Amino acid sequence: MQTAAIFGIGLIGGSFALAIRRAGFTGPVLGVSSPSTIAKALKKNVISEGVSLEEACARADFIYLAQPIQRILDVIPLLAEHVREDALITDAGSTKSAIMEAADRHIKRGYFLGGHPMAGREVRGVEAAEAELFQDRPYVLTPRHLSDLEIPMVGEFMNLIRAIGAHPVTLTSDEHDRAVAYLSHLPQILSTALASTLHDLDLRMEIAGPGVLDLTRLALSPFDIWRDIFVTNQSNIAGAIDDFICKLQYLKRNLDSEQARKVFSEAAGAARRLRKN
Amino acid sequence: MQTAAIFGIGLIGGSFALAIRRAGFTGPVLGVSSPSTIAKALKKNVISEGVSLEEACARADFIYLAQPIQRILDVIPLLAEHVREDALITDAGSTKSAIMEAADRHIKRGYFLGGHPMAGREVRGVEAAEAELFQDRPYVLTPRHLSDLEIPMVGEFMNLIRAIGAHPVTLTSDEHDRAVAYLSHLPQILSTALASTLHDLDLRMEIAGPGVLDLTRLALSPFDIWRDIFVTNQSNIAGAIDDFICKLQYLKRNLDSEQARKVFSEAAGAARRLRKN
Repeated sequence: MQTAAIFGIGLIGGSFALAIRRAGFTGPVLGVSSPSTIAKALKKNVISEGVSLEEACARADFIYLAQPIQRILDVIPLLAEHVREDALITDAGSTKSAIMEAADRHIKRGYFLGGHPMAGREVRGVEAAEAELFQDRPYVLTPRHLSDLEIPMVGEFMNLIRAIGAHPVTLTSDEHDRAVAYLSHLPQILSTALASTLHDLDLRMEIAGPGVLDLTRLALSPFDIWRDIFVTNQSNIAGAIDDFICKLQYLKRNLDSEQARKVFSEAAGAARRLRKN
Repeated sequence: MQTAAIFGIGLIGGSFALAIRRAGFTGPVLGVSSPSTIAKALKKNVISEGVSLEEACARADFIYLAQPIQRILDVIPLLAEHVREDALITDAGSTKSAIMEAADRHIKRGYFLGGHPMAGREVRGVEAAEAELFQDRPYVLTPRHLSDLEIPMVGEFMNLIRAIGAHPVTLTSDEHDRAVAYLSHLPQILSTALASTLHDLDLRMEIAGPGVLDLTRLALSPFDIWRDIFVTNQSNIAGAIDDFICKLQYLKRNLDSEQARKVFSEAAGAARRLRKN
């Protein structure tokens, strides 16, 4: 990979640019974004230059799409026309099936590898970008076929992921979207539903303890970063909510019985396993 | 208050004993507990001496019940026979209506004031007791009647609560039990139900982020500390679960619409208000 182009230079795109530079990538890092973001990214030395989509596609053999999901879906048909034959195109979208389908349909030149770095911060924008963002975090890759991992430029990208300190995890896009429905989207929705339930009541909130603060932290997230995720993962999320309601109703019916003890014990086991990673 | 007796010398009872001593209480602090706990409490200078229930009732003008809820319900009829005419009896149980009803029915001498210090730690037992446990924490009081706050020994107890650094909050027992159903019991049940839902699935848990860890922290709690709470607050908890499911189903139906944006915005507002206390 000689020339990189980052589309969307927010927290993830900006951090990725800084991370590959620190990991030894010496070629130009082109940026495709709004003029104001390009200006900020140049000032912070996150990118080498700001260019148009067409120029980025003509020059880069490595394209990194770090925009919101809907923007990635919109940009895929546009870049498909311009991309180089030898380009690796990858993305950092939080859901994968819709993006993989769009790539399958439109991208006939180059190779598209889906990706989802499991990293983030509570702040957004290139101002918050940092080279260490991916350190010790999982980085999900969703190749079209498992055998695609043998393609040399895919191997090169996996080495780059390791070089920025992340751990590659290979999943199909369906496996990814189902897993994040339970591990990320359901927790967000539960936190929001709990805080919204409290919103409707007239309670003495000053008696709240640390538990309800843990449970409502995600509810502080703005809807804007979730809308595209909900739209592109609706059936997995609906399934996760249904499973959860089933469990909750079982627990409600058995609160004073040994069945509840068993649920508590299995839940504590799962909570401990989550913490072992 | 000349002589205190603490029933149940675990984290709460032990910390209360240490806290009033540090706040200037100079009289004897009697302890009623198992022989092994008494031995540990004496060794740590948490109590002055270990005594029987009968001796505690005969000598103490201030009785503090810090056992689990069911044990408090069992001990109320026993101490009612022996308690002094001038005694203030209070408790630290996590639900209040069942305890207030038992006290109403049985305690004909002395005065019973319900209490619930909103303080705790992840560790249990007198070994974990510390004088600072109640510092800056709310301390709910549930008098039988609001006018009871004018009784001199109730006023004296409220001063003691302030002296240990806590903030008295006065509620009826019904208000308390409804508020904690939403602010404490529902969060615990949601956390357990989420972790239990994850337990049933075959997911790649290594891709979990910090959000699901926040949401499953309470699921690490053992059932034993919750069973009595569930039994004595069942109808409030069932109502809170029903309200929550309603909200969750509304959110599920409207995930891709502006209705979801409104729920997110109200939820974020409630989450911020919770953090202002």
